[in-house]
Amino acid sequence: MALVHYPVLNKNNDIIASAVTNLDLHDISRAAKTYGVKSVYVVTPLKDQIVLVEKVIFHWTGGLGSSYNPKRRQALELINIQETLEGVVNAIGKSSESQKTPKTVVTSARHGQSNLRFCKFRELLKDGNPYLLVLGTAWGLAESILDGADYVLDAVKGDCSYNHLSVRSAAAIIFDRLLGRDD
Amino acid sequence: MALVHYPVLNKNNDIIASAVTNLDLHDISRAAKTYGVKSVYVVTPLKDQIVLVEKVIFHWTGGLGSSYNPKRRQALELINIQETLEGVVNAIGKSSESQKTPKTVVTSARHGQSNLRFCKFRELLKDGNPYLLVLGTAWGLAESILDGADYVLDAVKGDCSYNHLSVRSAAAIIFDRLLGRDD
Repeated sequence: MALVHYPVLNKNNDIIASAVTNLDLHDISRAAKTYGVKSVYVVTPLKDQIVLVEKVIFHWTGGLGSSYNPKRRQALELINIQETLEGVVNAIGKSSESQKTPKTVVTSARHGQSNLRFCKFRELLKDGNPYLLVLGTAWGLAESILDGADYVLDAVKGDCSYNHLSVRSAAAIIFDRLLGRDD
Repeated sequence: MALVHYPVLNKNNDIIASAVTNLDLHDISRAAKTYGVKSVYVVTPLKDQIVLVEKVIFHWTGGLGSSYNPKRRQALELINIQETLEGVVNAIGKSSESQKTPKTVVTSARHGQSNLRFCKFRELLKDGNPYLLVLGTAWGLAESILDGADYVLDAVKGDCSYNHLSVRSAAAIIFDRLLGRDD
C-alpha cells in the first residue's frame, strides 16, 4: 500500500503536501504486518519529511526502540519511502516476484463512483498479480491521483451518514475487509 | 464502548494506569460516530488525566476547534469520562432507554478463550439491550476486568501470526465487523 502526502487536498480543496504523522507510521505498519501486507510506502517529496520518516524507522528497526519493542521493528520494517506514487509503482514492478507493474486501487471517502466492491477486490487479490492500495492523508487524494488509478474502491460505510474516519482507522478496516478472517 | 486506562497491563504484566493518548480520543470517537456507537467512555482515575481529556473535549466541542472543524465536534461529543468501569456500567444503566445494566464484552489479544464470535455479537446487538464493548490501552486489560465480564470477544485475526494492532485500529475493525455495511 501507499500512504500519500502529496498531492492531497486540504479542507479548502487546495492541493498541498501534508506533514507525515508519526502515529500513521506505527498504526498502519502494525496493521499491515497483522494482515500480511507486503510493503507500506510513504509518499512525500519533501526532504525534511523523508529525513523524519527515516529517523523514525531507524529508531525502531536499528536503534534503541528495536530492543525495547521488537514487535514494532517487525512492523516498521515494512515501511519504504518514495517521492512520488509513480516511484512506488516502478519499485513494485521491479521487486515483485512476477515483475509486473501493480494495478492501483485508490480510496476516496468523497468519491461517488462505486468502481470496485470489497468482495470483488478480495477475489482479485487471489490472482497472483500485485495490487497497490493507495490511501491519502489530509482531506484525501488529489483528483489527478484518482483519475490515473486502475480502480476506485468503494467507500467504507458505517451505520449512518457521518463518515470521517482517520486514515489510520480506514487502513485498518480496509485490510480487515480484504484480508481478515473471522473464524 | 469504554476505553480503559486502569487497570491495564504494562509489557512486564504489571498493573498500571496508562496515560491518555490524544489521538485515541480523536480516532476512536470519529470511528464511533461513523458506526453509530452511542458513547465512548474514557476510564481513568487519575485527576490530571481527567483534566486533560476535559480540555481536549472542550477545545473541539466548545472552543476554537469546534468552528475550525465541526465534524470533530460531532465525534468528540460522544466522549464521557468515568473513574472506573463500574461507573460506566452504572451510568449506562441509568441513561439507556431500557434502564437496563449493559452486558459487558471485553477484548483481549492474548486471551485464548473464544467466548463470543463477531457474527454472534452482531446478532445480539439487535436485541434492544445495551452492550458495553470494553477495550484496554497499553498491553491490554487486567485479568480482573476480563474475569468480571459477561463475554470475551474473539480476537481480531489477520492473515498471519503477528497480531499487534493499536487500540485505535482494533476499535475501528471491531466497529466495522459489528456495525459496518458493505453494499
